[in-house]
Amino acid sequence: MAQIGFIGLGRMGFAMSRNLIDASHSVWVYDINPSAVERIVALGGHAAASAAEAAANRDFVVTMLPNGPDVEETLFGAGGVATALTKDTLFIDMSTIAPDMTDKIARGLSAMNIRMVDAPVGGTSEVAERGDLLILAGGDASDVARAQAVFDAVGRQTIHCGENGTGTRTKIVNNFMSTALNILTAETLAFAEGAGLDVARTVDVLAGTTAGRGFVSGAYQRKVLNHDISPEFGLALAAKDLNLALNYAAGLNIPLPVGAAASQIYAMAKAEGFGVNDWSAALETMRRTAALPRMSFDGQ
Amino acid sequence: MAQIGFIGLGRMGFAMSRNLIDASHSVWVYDINPSAVERIVALGGHAAASAAEAAANRDFVVTMLPNGPDVEETLFGAGGVATALTKDTLFIDMSTIAPDMTDKIARGLSAMNIRMVDAPVGGTSEVAERGDLLILAGGDASDVARAQAVFDAVGRQTIHCGENGTGTRTKIVNNFMSTALNILTAETLAFAEGAGLDVARTVDVLAGTTAGRGFVSGAYQRKVLNHDISPEFGLALAAKDLNLALNYAAGLNIPLPVGAAASQIYAMAKAEGFGVNDWSAALETMRRTAALPRMSFDGQ
Amino acid sequence: MAQIGFIGLGRMGFAMSRNLIDASHSVWVYDINPSAVERIVALGGHAAASAAEAAANRDFVVTMLPNGPDVEETLFGAGGVATALTKDTLFIDMSTIAPDMTDKIARGLSAMNIRMVDAPVGGTSEVAERGDLLILAGGDASDVARAQAVFDAVGRQTIHCGENGTGTRTKIVNNFMSTALNILTAETLAFAEGAGLDVARTVDVLAGTTAGRGFVSGAYQRKVLNHDISPEFGLALAAKDLNLALNYAAGLNIPLPVGAAASQIYAMAKAEGFGVNDWSAALETMRRTAALPRMSFDGQ
Amino acid sequence: MAQIGFIGLGRMGFAMSRNLIDASHSVWVYDINPSAVERIVALGGHAAASAAEAAANRDFVVTMLPNGPDVEETLFGAGGVATALTKDTLFIDMSTIAPDMTDKIARGLSAMNIRMVDAPVGGTSEVAERGDLLILAGGDASDVARAQAVFDAVGRQTIHCGENGTGTRTKIVNNFMSTALNILTAETLAFAEGAGLDVARTVDVLAGTTAGRGFVSGAYQRKVLNHDISPEFGLALAAKDLNLALNYAAGLNIPLPVGAAASQIYAMAKAEGFGVNDWSAALETMRRTAALPRMSFDGQ
Ligand SMILES: NC(=O)c1ccc[n+]([C@@H]2O[C@H](COP(=O)([O-])OP(=O)(O)OC[C@H]3O[C@@H](n4cnc5c(N)ncnc54)[C@H](O)[C@@H]3O)[C@@H](O)[C@H]2O)c1
Ligand SMILES: NC(=O)c1ccc[n+]([C@@H]2O[C@H](COP(=O)([O-])OP(=O)(O)OC[C@H]3O[C@@H](n4cnc5c(N)ncnc54)[C@H](O)[C@@H]3O)[C@@H](O)[C@H]2O)c1
Ligand SMILES: NC(=O)c1ccc[n+]([C@@H]2O[C@H](COP(=O)([O-])OP(=O)(O)OC[C@H]3O[C@@H](n4cnc5c(N)ncnc54)[C@H](O)[C@@H]3O)[C@@H](O)[C@H]2O)c1
Ligand SMILES: NC(=O)c1ccc[n+]([C@@H]2O[C@H](COP(=O)([O-])OP(=O)(O)OC[C@H]3O[C@@H](n4cnc5c(N)ncnc54)[C@H](O)[C@@H]3O)[C@@H](O)[C@H]2O)c1
Repeated sequence: MAQIGFIGLGRMGFAMSRNLIDASHSVWVYDINPSAVERIVALGGHAAASAAEAAANRDFVVTMLPNGPDVEETLFGAGGVATALTKDTLFIDMSTIAPDMTDKIARGLSAMNIRMVDAPVGGTSEVAERGDLLILAGGDASDVARAQAVFDAVGRQTIHCGENGTGTRTKIVNNFMSTALNILTAETLAFAEGAGLDVARTVDVLAGTTAGRGFVSGAYQRKVLNHDISPEFGLALAAKDLNLALNYAAGLNIPLPVGAAASQIYAMAKAEGFGVNDWSAALETMRRTAALPRMSFDGQ
Repeated sequence: MAQIGFIGLGRMGFAMSRNLIDASHSVWVYDINPSAVERIVALGGHAAASAAEAAANRDFVVTMLPNGPDVEETLFGAGGVATALTKDTLFIDMSTIAPDMTDKIARGLSAMNIRMVDAPVGGTSEVAERGDLLILAGGDASDVARAQAVFDAVGRQTIHCGENGTGTRTKIVNNFMSTALNILTAETLAFAEGAGLDVARTVDVLAGTTAGRGFVSGAYQRKVLNHDISPEFGLALAAKDLNLALNYAAGLNIPLPVGAAASQIYAMAKAEGFGVNDWSAALETMRRTAALPRMSFDGQ
Repeated sequence: MAQIGFIGLGRMGFAMSRNLIDASHSVWVYDINPSAVERIVALGGHAAASAAEAAANRDFVVTMLPNGPDVEETLFGAGGVATALTKDTLFIDMSTIAPDMTDKIARGLSAMNIRMVDAPVGGTSEVAERGDLLILAGGDASDVARAQAVFDAVGRQTIHCGENGTGTRTKIVNNFMSTALNILTAETLAFAEGAGLDVARTVDVLAGTTAGRGFVSGAYQRKVLNHDISPEFGLALAAKDLNLALNYAAGLNIPLPVGAAASQIYAMAKAEGFGVNDWSAALETMRRTAALPRMSFDGQ
Repeated sequence: MAQIGFIGLGRMGFAMSRNLIDASHSVWVYDINPSAVERIVALGGHAAASAAEAAANRDFVVTMLPNGPDVEETLFGAGGVATALTKDTLFIDMSTIAPDMTDKIARGLSAMNIRMVDAPVGGTSEVAERGDLLILAGGDASDVARAQAVFDAVGRQTIHCGENGTGTRTKIVNNFMSTALNILTAETLAFAEGAGLDVARTVDVLAGTTAGRGFVSGAYQRKVLNHDISPEFGLALAAKDLNLALNYAAGLNIPLPVGAAASQIYAMAKAEGFGVNDWSAALETMRRTAALPRMSFDGQ
C-alpha cells in the first residue's frame, strides 16, 4: 500500500482522504484548520505539522484546496511542499483551478524534475463520500497509470484527457457548461411559474425532451459534429421560438438573461446564412466568433 | 373514423396528415402551396380549395402553420375558417405560436361558441414522420379527451397541461430552454476546441455529467424544488468555476456570451446570501428578479 | 392657420396639441379617455366624438398613441381614421412604434392615395411642454416640408431622415442606444457605490471623460468612421480594463450584465485580430456579426 | 526640481517621462525593452540598468506598466524596486491595474514604511503626449499634494479620489463604463446601417440626444440621484422602445447583445414596480441586485 500526503481536508478532501485510509493506504494529512486534521486522525490518518511534512518521503502527494493561488502558495511559498518533494514522489493536484495556474505549476515542478498529474474531479461531496468521483487526469500516460492507485480509492472512473493541463481544462469546460446550465434551468422554471404553469408538470415535460436531456449525446453527435447540418429542426425556427419566448416573458416582466444572450447568437447564425440549416449549426457560428478554423459540411 | 380538416402541410403538417390518413381518418387538406396539397392527395387525402372548405363539417380541424399571425389570419381573415366552424367541430392548433395569440384566438372562438385545444408538439419532423410526437395539450379535459383520436395518430404521448393556453405556454417554456441550451452547447464545444482539447473526448465526458445530462430530473428535484438548499455543490464554488472559465476563455479570445450572462446571476445570488447554499438556489434568485412569491426553505 | 386633427392626448399629446393651439391652429382632438379631451377643450381645442370625426376635412391629422397596434387600429379599425382621410389631408404619425408597423401603415395609406409622414419625436414630456422636441421625419421631401407648420409648433428642430419609415427607424435606433445606455449608467453607478467610492465624485469624473460624454461625436468620428483604426486607445487594452472591472465586481458580488455582454464582443474583436487596433474597431466586429459588407481601413 | 525614477516606457510612459524631462526634472528610466530606454535617453533621460537602480535615492518613483502582476513583480520580485525604496521616496503607480492588486501593493509597501499614491490616468497616448492627462489619485492628502509636482508635468487635472485604492477604483469604474459604451456605440451604428439608415446622419442625430450625450450629468443628476423618480420619461416606455428595437433587429439578423442584456434589467425593474417611474430608477434595480442599501425616494 502507498504512502500518501494529503493537503486540504474540506468537504471534498475529508471524504477523499478517508476513502484512501479505508483502502488501506497510509495517509499523512494537513489542513490550515486543525480541527479538519483531527477529524481524519480519528479515522486513522497521521497528522502532519505542515504541508511540507505531510509531503516528505511519500509515494503521492495530493492537494485538494479551494483555488489556484492556494495550491501555488502551498507548493512554492516559503517552506512549501516543493522543497519536500523528490523525483520519487508523484504530485497530484485534484483542486479545480485556472488552467494558466496548472500550467505555471507544472512548469515550476518540471524545472525541479518533479512529476505531476492534474486531476480535478467531477461529482459533489456526496459522490466523493461514496468514492464515486469522476477523475479527469492530465499528464504523461505512465504518471496517470501510477496515480491510478489513488484514483481507484476515490473515484469510479478515470478519463485520461491528455498531457498536463488537459485534466484542468476538461474540468473547466465541463463546469462552464454545468454552472451556466444551472442558471438556464433556473430561468426556465421561473419562467414556467411566471407563465402560470404547474412547475412540477413542466419539469416532467422537460425531463423527456431535449430541453432537459441535452444535446451532447444526441443531436450534436448525429448532426453538426458529424458534418451534417441538413435541418432536423431548422435554426430559423429555433430562433423564432426563442424570440417568442423572450417577447412573452418581457410582457410578464420575467427576466431571462441567459436566453436573451442566446438569441443574439441566433441572429449571428442567421446573418451567416445558417437559418435554413440544422439548429446545431450554431456551433459553427460560435467557432467562427472564436476564429477557429472553418468546418466543412456534407453537401455544401 | 373521424372527418378531419388539416391546414398547413409543411415539414410537420405533411407527416402528421399522412399519419392521420394511415390511421384511416378522412382528411381534407389545404395549404397555400398547391404542390403541398398534391403530395398529400397522392397519399389519400382530399384536396380542399380553401381553408374554410377544408374545415366545414368536420369533427376536427387542425392547423399546423408557421406562426401566430398565420393562424389568426386563417381563422379570422376574410372567408376564414372560423366562418366554417360550428359547435360540433373541435379546433386544434398544433403550431408553435405566441401565448398571447393563443389566448386571443381562444377568446375569439369562445365568443363564437367554438371549442378549441391548443396542442403544440415536441419532436422534429423526423419524429413527426414516425408518429412519435409529444403533444402538449391545453383545454378542457373533455376536449382533450376527444382530441385523443387525432393525437394518437401523430404522437406517442399526450400531456394535458391545463386549460386553454397552457399547451402553448408549456411548449414555449420548453423551447426556450432547448433553444438556449443549443447555444450553450455550441459555446461549450467551441471552448473545448479553443482550449486545445479533443472535442470527441470532451463530448464523452460531458455526456456523463450534469453538464450534458441536465438538472431537471436530478439536482433540482432533490434540492431546491424539494425546499432543500443545503449545499450538495456550493453556489459560491459554482460561481468560482464559471468565473475561472470566463477568465480563461477571455485570455484565449473565445466568446462565451451565454456563460457571461449566467455569471451575473451568480453575483446576484451571492449578493442575496446564497453563496453558502446549494447551487440550485439560483432558482430563487431568478424567481425574485421576476417578483414571484418567495419560497421557503427547510431549516432556514 | 391649419385645421388639425389630433388623436392621443396623453403626456406627450396633451403638450403638443396645446402648443398647436397656442400657435393659433384649429385643433380637433380625440382620446379614448374623455377627461383628456376635456382638458384640451378647456384650452381652446375642439372636441371630436371619434377619431374619424377629429380627422375629417383637416389639413393634417396627427396621432400620438402608445404603440403600433393602437395606431393601426385607429386608422384601419372599423370606422377608423382612414375612412375619413382624403388625398388633401397629410397624415402624421408621431408615436414611437415598430418600423414594420410604420411600413405596413404606409403601404395601407399609399394604396388609398393618402400621404403620410412618420415623425416620432425626441425629448421627454417636459421638453414637449416647452415646444422643444426633436422631430425625426420620414417621407417625401414635399410632405415633410408641408408638415413643417405642425413641427414648428411642437419642436425646435426637424431632421428629415429620408423616405417613409426612416423617421421611425432613426427613432428606434436612437432609443435603442439611450435605453441601453440608461442601464449601463445604472450599472456603473451601482458599481462605484459597491466599490466604496463616493458616487457624487465619481459622477464628476465620468462627466469629464468618454465614459460620460460618449463616442459618437468624438473618437468614432475621428477613427473608425474615418476608416482609421490605428490605435489611439488599443482595443486589447480596453478589453483588459473591462475584464479587470468584471473580475473586481465579481469579487464584490456586483452584477454588471451589460458590461459582461460587452466583454464578449471584445473577445470576438480580438479573435479577428483587432486587438492591436483602435478600440473603435469594435464597430467592424459588430458589422461583421450582422453580415454587413466589410469596411476598408487606411493602411491595411 | 525633483529626482524621478520612471519604469515602463511604452506608449504612455514614453510620453509622460518626456514631459517630466521637459519640465526640467531629472528622470532615471528603465524598461525591459532597451530601445525604449534609448529613445528617452536621447531626449535627456538617464538610463538605469535595472528598475531598482532607477528607483534608488529618488524623490518619486513612477511605474507605468501593462498590468498588476508587472507592477507587483517590479516592486517585490527578486532585486525589485521595493528593496531600493526608503521612506523619503514617494512611490506612484500610474498603471491601470486591478484594485485588489493595488490594495496588496499598498499593504506590502505600508509594512515597509514606504508611502504610495495610486494614480492611474484618463486620456489616450495622444493626450499623454500633450501633457493633458486626467489624474485619478488615491492616497493620503499630503502624499497626493507632494505628487502634484509629477502630476502637473503630465496632466491637466488631478482629482483626489480618497485613500489608497480609490484612484484605481475610480479608474476601473470609469473604464468599465467607457469600454462597455464603446460596444454599445458599435452595436447602435451597425444597427443603423443594417436598418438602411444613413450612418452619418444618424450620428448627427445621436450627437444631439441623450443617446449620444449620456445621462450622468443630465437626467441622473436631476432625477434618481436627487431622490426623485417621478417620470420624466417613463421606465415602462423606455422598456417598450428597447424591445421594439430588439424585435426589429432580430428580424434583420442584427445582433445587439449589449441591448439584449439591458432589456432584462428593464424586466426586473418593471417586476419591482418601477415601470411607472422615471427610467433612471433603473439605478435602484441595479443597486438592489447588488444588495446595496435601499434608496429612499421623495413622495414614496
Ligand atoms: N464541493 C464540491 O462539490 C466539489 C466538486 C468538485 C470539485 N471541487 C473542488 O475541490 C476543491 C476543494 O473543494 P471543497 O468543497 O473541499 O472546499 P472546502 O472549502 O470545503 O475545503 C477546502 C479546505 O482547504 C483548506 N485550506 C485552505 N487553504 C489551505 C492551505 N493553504 N493549506 C492547507 N489547507 C488549506 C481549508 O481549511 C479547507 O478545509 C475546490 O477546488 C473545488 O472547486 C469541489
Ligand atoms: N419543424 C420542426 O421540427 C417543428 C417541431 C415542432 C414544432 N414545429 C412547429 O410546427 C409549425 C410548422 O412547422 P413546419 O416545420 O411544418 O413549417 P413549414 O414552414 O415547413 O410549413 C408551414 C406550411 O404552412 C403553409 N402555410 C403558410 N401560411 C399558410 C396559410 N395562410 N394557409 C395555408 N397554409 C399556409 C406553408 O405553405 C407551409 O407548407 C411551426 O409553428 C413550427 O414552429 C416545428
Ligand atoms: N413620454 C415621453 O417622454 C415620450 C418621449 C418620446 C416619445 N414618446 C412616445 O410618444 C407616444 C405617446 O407617449 P405618451 O407618453 O404621451 O403616452 P401616454 O400613455 O401618456 O398617452 C397615450 C394616450 O393615448 C390615448 N389612447 C390610447 N389608445 C387610444 C386610442 N385607440 N384612441 C385614442 N386615444 C388613445 C390614451 O388614453 C392616452 O391619453 C408613445 O409612442 C411614446 O413612446 C414618449
Ligand atoms: N494607452 C493608453 O491610451 C492608456 C490610457 C490610460 C491608461 N493606460 C494604462 O497605462 C499602462 C501602460 O499602457 P501603455 O499603453 O503605455 O502600454 P505599452 O504596452 O505601450 O507599454 C508598456 C511598457 O512597459 C514595459 N514593461 C513591461 N514589463 C516591464 C517590466 N517588468 N519592467 C520594465 N518595463 C516593463 C514594456 O516593455 C513597455 O514598454 C497600462 O496599464 C494601460 O492600461 C493606457
